[in-house]
Amino acid sequence: MSAQTIASKLLRIDYPIIQAPMLGVTTPDMVAAVAKEGGLGSLPVGGLSPEITFQLIKETKSKTSKPFSVNLFAHEITTSVDIAELNTMQDFLETVFQEYNIPFERKEISDFTFYSYEEQIEILINENIPIVSFTFGTLNPDIIDRFKRRGTVLIGTATDVNEAKVLADSGVDMVVAQGIEAGGHRGSFLPDKPLPQVGLLSLLPQIVDAISIPVIAAGGLFDKRTIQAAFTLGAQVVQLGSIFIASDESAASDAYKEAVLHSNETSTELTRAFSGRWARGIRNDFMERMKTSGIPIPSYTYQNSLTAPLRAYARTYDLVDLISLWAGQSSFRSRRGKSSDIFRSLVQSLQL
Amino acid sequence: MSAQTIASKLLRIDYPIIQAPMLGVTTPDMVAAVAKEGGLGSLPVGGLSPEITFQLIKETKSKTSKPFSVNLFAHEITTSVDIAELNTMQDFLETVFQEYNIPFERKEISDFTFYSYEEQIEILINENIPIVSFTFGTLNPDIIDRFKRRGTVLIGTATDVNEAKVLADSGVDMVVAQGIEAGGHRGSFLPDKPLPQVGLLSLLPQIVDAISIPVIAAGGLFDKRTIQAAFTLGAQVVQLGSIFIASDESAASDAYKEAVLHSNETSTELTRAFSGRWARGIRNDFMERMKTSGIPIPSYTYQNSLTAPLRAYARTYDLVDLISLWAGQSSFRSRRGKSSDIFRSLVQSLQL
Repeated sequence: MSAQTIASKLLRIDYPIIQAPMLGVTTPDMVAAVAKEGGLGSLPVGGLSPEITFQLIKETKSKTSKPFSVNLFAHEITTSVDIAELNTMQDFLETVFQEYNIPFERKEISDFTFYSYEEQIEILINENIPIVSFTFGTLNPDIIDRFKRRGTVLIGTATDVNEAKVLADSGVDMVVAQGIEAGGHRGSFLPDKPLPQVGLLSLLPQIVDAISIPVIAAGGLFDKRTIQAAFTLGAQVVQLGSIFIASDESAASDAYKEAVLHSNETSTELTRAFSGRWARGIRNDFMERMKTSGIPIPSYTYQNSLTAPLRAYARTYDLVDLISLWAGQSSFRSRRGKSSDIFRSLVQSLQL
Repeated sequence: MSAQTIASKLLRIDYPIIQAPMLGVTTPDMVAAVAKEGGLGSLPVGGLSPEITFQLIKETKSKTSKPFSVNLFAHEITTSVDIAELNTMQDFLETVFQEYNIPFERKEISDFTFYSYEEQIEILINENIPIVSFTFGTLNPDIIDRFKRRGTVLIGTATDVNEAKVLADSGVDMVVAQGIEAGGHRGSFLPDKPLPQVGLLSLLPQIVDAISIPVIAAGGLFDKRTIQAAFTLGAQVVQLGSIFIASDESAASDAYKEAVLHSNETSTELTRAFSGRWARGIRNDFMERMKTSGIPIPSYTYQNSLTAPLRAYARTYDLVDLISLWAGQSSFRSRRGKSSDIFRSLVQSLQL
C-alpha cells in the first residue's frame, strides 16, 4: 500500500487530495461537492463566532454524509494594540470609505470583538468532526488531548521546518507544508524572525525529512504534473485551493472570480493591508494605496475588523479595488463550473 | 529517446545537469571538474573585463578538453544615476568602512568603469565557446545571429512567463526557469513591474507550457527528489549552484562556506544591498544595516562598485558580516569535498 493510500485511509477519503479551507470563498456546498467525489473538503471557520460555526457545520452536514474537515485559526487572541496606530489607520481608511460613499464608523477599542478558537472546540466535539485542521499556531495541549482521546485527526500548518517540528511534537497527525506559492494567509506562527518565504520545492522535502508524520503539500499545485511532483518530493497528500475559487460553489464575488481567471504567475504578492497578517492576493488598488501610504498596519485581527466594511461593500457592489483577492501563484488554473467536475478532472488526470 | 537525453545531446553532456554560474564562487577548477564528470560546467564572466574573461577561459581550457558554457550579464549598461543618491550611499558606506578600518576612497562619476557583455563576444567567438548562457536580459539580435551562424547553443534566463517568451522569440535554444528559491542574482529583466517572485513548482510548468524550446529548471534543487520533481514538471535539464558553494574548488571564503553549511531554508532573503540588483543571500549584518538605514540603493552596477572594496576586505579577512553570502533556499545541502564527487553522487542517486 502506498504512502498516499495510507494517508487517505487516515483521512477517510478515496483520493489523497484536499480542497483547501478558504475563508470567504469555501462554502458548505463546495465542501460537500468535494467530499462526495472522494476528496477531503475543508470547512473554514477561523475567527467565526460559535453560532456561525455551528450553522456552517450543520449546513455542510445537510449536504453530505461524508466526513469533512473543519479549519480553525489557532492563534492566541492578543488584545494589545497601539491605539495611536489604530487611529492613524482609521484616519486613512476614512478617506477611502468617503471616496466610495461608504458610511464610516470610527471604532473604539471596546468595539472590537474577537473569538478564540477555544470557543469553537465544544461544537466540533459535539458535532463529531473527524478531522480538524488549523493554521496560525498550535492548539493548546488540553484541547489536543481531548481531540486525540476521541480519535480526531489533527492537521497543523507549517511554513518552515521549525514550525513543522513544533507541530509534530505537539501531537498532530499530519502537517501541511505551505509553500510561498500558496494563496491566502501565511500560516506562519513562530515569533521573532522574518516571515518564512520558502518555495514548496525546497520546503517540502526538508519538512518531510524533519518529521515522521505524513506531510500535506500546499501551494502552487494545479495539475497532474505539480501534484505528481509533490508526491515525488515526499508529500502523502496534496491540498489545492485556488483551483476552486471560480467554481459555481465558491462564495467569491464575480469580480474576484474574473480577477483570478485572468491572473498570471506574477499577479499576486504578499500583503498585510487587509487583515494585518501576511497573505497572498492579486495586486489591487487598496494594496497599492496602503503600500504607498507607508502607514503602519495594526496587527491581526484589528486591521481585519477595520477593513471588514470595505470588503463587504466591495463584495456587494462587485468591485475588485477594495476586496482581498486571495489567490496563489497558479490561480490562473481556476475555472468556472462545478467543484465536483474540477475535482474529478484532477483525479482522472492523475489516473488514481 | 527521452527529452532529457535530447537536451543533453544538444549540450554535449552525458547527464542533464548544469553547474550554475556563480560569480565569485565558481572557478575554472569547478567548471573543469563538472565537465569531466559529464555535466555542464558554467564559467561566469558577467561584468568582467575582456582581459579577465580571456584569462578565465584559457585557464578553464587548460584544465579540461570537454565543452563548457560561459555565462554573461546581458543587460544594457545604464550610465544614468542619481548623483545625490550616490553621495548619500557613499556617506553611509564611509561610516561602515571606518568601523572596520578599511580605507575609503570617495568615487566620482568618472571613477566608475563598466564593461558591456558586447566587449566579451569577440573572445567567446575566437575561443569557440560552444554554449553561451546569460542573465539580466536578452542578447542583441546581431550577436544572436553571429552565434547562431556558428552553431553556438544559447541559453537565456527567465523569472516569469513573459521573460521566457521574450527569450524564446529572440532565438535562444533553451531557457532557464529561475524559481524564487534560487541563490544569487535574480535574472529578471523586463521593466516597469514588480520583481517576479514565483516558486519553481508554479513557474516551471507555466514556462514549459508557454514556449516550445527546452527548459532548464533552477532554484532549490538539491537531491534526487527535487531533480526528479523538476523533470516531472517538464524540465529537460536541471541547474544546481548552491550545492557546490562549499566544495574544494569553490572560491568562496571559508566564512562564507561555513555560513552556507549552517544555513537552513529560512536563512536567506532577497536584497539589493550589495549590488543594486535583487539577489538571494544569507542574511548578515550588512544586509540588515542597509535595510534599517532606509537609504535608497543606487542601481546596479553603481552599488556593486561602491561595495566592492568592502566585499574584498571581508573576503581577505574571512568575515561574514560584510560579504554577499549568495545562497539558495536549499543551500544547507552544500558540502565540503570535491566538486566531482558532489556531481557524481547526484548522478548516482538519480541512477542516470
